[in-house]
Amino acid sequence: MGRILDAISSPADIKVLTDGELAILAQEIREQIIATASHTGGHVASSLGAVDIILAVHSLIDSPKDRFVFDVGHQAYAHKLITGRRDAFDTLRQFGGISGFPRPDESPYDVHHSGHASDSLSIALGLAKARDLRGSDEKVVALIGDASLAGGMAFEALNTIGQLQLPVVIILNDNEMSISRNVGALVRHLGAIRSSASYRQARDQSQERLEESAFGRAVVNFGRSAKDSIKQFFVPDTMMFEQLGILCTPPIDGHNIPAMRAILKTALDSDGPVLMHVVTKKGKGYAPAVADPERFHGVGTFDIATGSSTKKLSGPQSYTEVFGKALVREARADEHIVAITAAMQSGTGLKAFAKEFPDRFIDVGIAEENAVGMAAGLALSGLKPVVAIYSTFLQRAIDQMIIDCALPKSNVVFAIDRAGIVGEDGPTHHGVYDITYCRMVPGMRVLAPSNEAELACALHTALRLEGPVAVRYPRGTGVGEQVPDRPTMLVEGESSVVREGSDAAVLAFGDRVAPALQAAEELAEEGVSVRVVDMRWVKPLDEQAIVEAAETKLVVTVENGIISGGAGEGVLQVLAKRGLSAPVRVLGIDDLNVPHGKPDKLLADLGIDAKGIAAAIRAGLQ
Amino acid sequence: MGRILDAISSPADIKVLTDGELAILAQEIREQIIATASHTGGHVASSLGAVDIILAVHSLIDSPKDRFVFDVGHQAYAHKLITGRRDAFDTLRQFGGISGFPRPDESPYDVHHSGHASDSLSIALGLAKARDLRGSDEKVVALIGDASLAGGMAFEALNTIGQLQLPVVIILNDNEMSISRNVGALVRHLGAIRSSASYRQARDQSQERLEESAFGRAVVNFGRSAKDSIKQFFVPDTMMFEQLGILCTPPIDGHNIPAMRAILKTALDSDGPVLMHVVTKKGKGYAPAVADPERFHGVGTFDIATGSSTKKLSGPQSYTEVFGKALVREARADEHIVAITAAMQSGTGLKAFAKEFPDRFIDVGIAEENAVGMAAGLALSGLKPVVAIYSTFLQRAIDQMIIDCALPKSNVVFAIDRAGIVGEDGPTHHGVYDITYCRMVPGMRVLAPSNEAELACALHTALRLEGPVAVRYPRGTGVGEQVPDRPTMLVEGESSVVREGSDAAVLAFGDRVAPALQAAEELAEEGVSVRVVDMRWVKPLDEQAIVEAAETKLVVTVENGIISGGAGEGVLQVLAKRGLSAPVRVLGIDDLNVPHGKPDKLLADLGIDAKGIAAAIRAGLQ
Repeated sequence: MGRILDAISSPADIKVLTDGELAILAQEIREQIIATASHTGGHVASSLGAVDIILAVHSLIDSPKDRFVFDVGHQAYAHKLITGRRDAFDTLRQFGGISGFPRPDESPYDVHHSGHASDSLSIALGLAKARDLRGSDEKVVALIGDASLAGGMAFEALNTIGQLQLPVVIILNDNEMSISRNVGALVRHLGAIRSSASYRQARDQSQERLEESAFGRAVVNFGRSAKDSIKQFFVPDTMMFEQLGILCTPPIDGHNIPAMRAILKTALDSDGPVLMHVVTKKGKGYAPAVADPERFHGVGTFDIATGSSTKKLSGPQSYTEVFGKALVREARADEHIVAITAAMQSGTGLKAFAKEFPDRFIDVGIAEENAVGMAAGLALSGLKPVVAIYSTFLQRAIDQMIIDCALPKSNVVFAIDRAGIVGEDGPTHHGVYDITYCRMVPGMRVLAPSNEAELACALHTALRLEGPVAVRYPRGTGVGEQVPDRPTMLVEGESSVVREGSDAAVLAFGDRVAPALQAAEELAEEGVSVRVVDMRWVKPLDEQAIVEAAETKLVVTVENGIISGGAGEGVLQVLAKRGLSAPVRVLGIDDLNVPHGKPDKLLADLGIDAKGIAAAIRAGLQ
Repeated sequence: MGRILDAISSPADIKVLTDGELAILAQEIREQIIATASHTGGHVASSLGAVDIILAVHSLIDSPKDRFVFDVGHQAYAHKLITGRRDAFDTLRQFGGISGFPRPDESPYDVHHSGHASDSLSIALGLAKARDLRGSDEKVVALIGDASLAGGMAFEALNTIGQLQLPVVIILNDNEMSISRNVGALVRHLGAIRSSASYRQARDQSQERLEESAFGRAVVNFGRSAKDSIKQFFVPDTMMFEQLGILCTPPIDGHNIPAMRAILKTALDSDGPVLMHVVTKKGKGYAPAVADPERFHGVGTFDIATGSSTKKLSGPQSYTEVFGKALVREARADEHIVAITAAMQSGTGLKAFAKEFPDRFIDVGIAEENAVGMAAGLALSGLKPVVAIYSTFLQRAIDQMIIDCALPKSNVVFAIDRAGIVGEDGPTHHGVYDITYCRMVPGMRVLAPSNEAELACALHTALRLEGPVAVRYPRGTGVGEQVPDRPTMLVEGESSVVREGSDAAVLAFGDRVAPALQAAEELAEEGVSVRVVDMRWVKPLDEQAIVEAAETKLVVTVENGIISGGAGEGVLQVLAKRGLSAPVRVLGIDDLNVPHGKPDKLLADLGIDAKGIAAAIRAGLQ
């Protein structure tokens, strides 16, 4: 017998399915997600958890006319499978294949590039306002997780949605678990709601009626309008959302499609904003993911039967691990060190730190602005906060870096993980702007270690400098360098010549030092002598090294980040200031959004791998 | 008889004052604020409103050991007057004088550089956490206005404060009025609290007891701990803050110092976070400011008797006015245009727009992230949102510019007001980063009009381009150019030679074109022929103009913004890409925080006024 899934070419096809068929389809989708992700890697736990919600929504709305907005779209795999991307789904996250996140340029069913948390409600708000201005009648549904609600942007949007009273349905996917552990008072508040007796009662009553299948009608008939109906049944007077003017339901079982459909039908007819509180289980339907949802949040390839990773575990440590261990070592020697994460305890390598120093570890949830602001407060009292955030997510807190940290010259260390091209997660996740935004912060020092040993020394140095310091390092494993037990202080603004040469000089930043060395070796065989400088510092730049580079026939700068405002432009600025003119080739990422795919492939396409660097030198010397 | 104020050299001196003396002191402080601000200008309305709160707090805490954190510190004038800055107070906002905002480098009583809204709670959170880690016992008090609470960063901090349950006193200064009108559901929620019967009763009871003066003790004796005591008396079960785990009081009269002192005393002893809901009147004690608090939010020099402005009203229009009028004109012709402000309806010149197109005007409150996210949503539905935000505040929404607007290439126009040096408000308000952060956004176009006529054309052009476009323009008046009724389209990336010359070429951006012309005239008298190019576009740059400039003996770039990642570095990048070497001097703001003072003075010190540009050309040609 064929799968129901194979008969679904658009969401319209699921509208005719019975409850029983929808349940079977949900199961097929889960099997497909597991099968594909087992060999592509991906966001398994949350995607499995959201399957039933996605089917319930698509069975009632008329997409793409109606707008289904995802928050952090890595939960959208089921959506992709039923919106014409089933046959291509095996190319998930591969270069040229299906993106792991919604992308409007991939499908008209994808409303926006959802990769950064907490933006869905603002997008939905804009869509709803536009609809009302134009007088059209499309529905707007936003799906947001409990962890994303902690982000200030979501609160800002709720505040405006409550004010404008625009009809929009917000589905709160409460999976009782943010990416790492639950954090924040809001999450506790949600927990209290889930466990309160009156809520349980309301839920039981509603489920009962839903099972009688007359519930939907009952709701509609009870009050004057759909909004009143929902209010009549459900409105608790202790919900935060209510106080913002947004009606909300009690917790609904997020794996019970008929139950969700009944309430959603009413919610879609409401003449104001409604929040559906839906409770799901991360990893639902796949035992290994339910057992370890954190590992299956974003997972590499795995064995379906056991759930265990099929990635070879040998090889060098990741930069994240090296950072985590180095920070623990530093913290043992200096009790002033405090670590802050924004919901990425594991992702930023802080698990061991949190275990050894629970009091000195703070997880603020997905709230980068507060993470950096709190660090500023800690530093004002003489502590040494280390804020570990991915490059792409630190974009949320640039103002706080400038105003709260740099103005008072506070001792805050920014550990910028996933700096540069990150690969399969694509354009919302590449960390390619941090060199520019860190350079522009007054007095900020910026280190870009070229290997894992340099990372340990860079962190050691950053913790001993006065004022804000950023250390940027890439995703993935290091080059295999031995990490020193006793890292040394790096001299501020001093680079290191890692290969001598006289025809051309490559000024390389961070992880581009290794390919620069490869390029130099390649060119040596062609009789070209290339100096390679590990610049170490993006700011301050080693001006002497730049001057000496300008004495060769060609200066090449290379960085894993965008060219606009990057380290290469900084080098040009030094040369201009000193009145030196030398041919310079600036290598980096041009003014474009880099797609998803394997990092090696992307770096090659951008011309900043060994081959690209060698080619630039050859061209420049002609 | 001398003033009490003249006997106050530190907050310790006010601890011995009686209630009656504190009331007199409050009056003296108000008179001083009015007297000084009448000839310096300043933030009068909110500073007058906060006088009594500040006295109540300082009469009970032991500053600077205890930490008194201000949110948007322009309300802190009373704090400045009683913390050793009375005699210097007449230099308020003048170069070298007292800053209009708290500055830790000005006084140990100033905890942080508070100039951007909503960061106080994160700072307080950090201070409280540091205190508990170190085992010290200082009190932490944060003063935040109702408008600032709408900022997501404040919500993020509340979420963590509620989670960690750290003792910190949050004083919510609810003046029933954000900078422009009240916006947001949260504000409505506060209003409901103020007017609810149970609250009024609680307030009346508490005021009564307070007047008996035994209240403070009564509270303490009633329950097991101070926290319980407050809970016993006040906890309403409908307050949003309670649901985040933060105890709160009913509204307290923010001009009744004894009442506030009684409750604050208990709050300071609490073993967890407490929110004191204090109601004040903006402008309290000065009739003209009470009558027009919006004008007296940030006001120029004024006549004390009448409150009317003493600034000459003749002269050219401000860029803000020109923008506002131009946008209304555009909106009449295109119903797709929608305007968004973040609590700056008047400041960004959108009053007329809001009046003529109330449905197409959205004020989201102090919530820049949501402003930009909502714009992205509007654009996804085919509208043309114009987001008008000051350069310094748009720093809060850089991530949203990249992810929500630039990735989908949405038609969002960013009207960046107050770009460049703003003057008296100082380092938290200078808009010197926008060129860098806009340049780094993929596909973003950036226009920097050189006068008011160019601004109208730039806006006209921005509204007709596909994809995100930023238009940056300075604070203050234009050069007196006639604004065209029918603005023309500017050709993308095309500059305009505004003066021919052959010895050197100045590539000038935005408001630096006028001083560049002056410099060229000055040098002409010395026999030096200087070309001046109005570059118009920061991105894309006019590469042909750059190539031609490189044919002279010297290229000078000049912009009102930081050098790191600025337009000058962009010019260097173009030259490097084309293999051209030419002597280039890049003028702009170096890696430092610019102090407060008159813009002309600051621009001269930075070397980017006419004299500075002329000097750079002379030096470069030697």
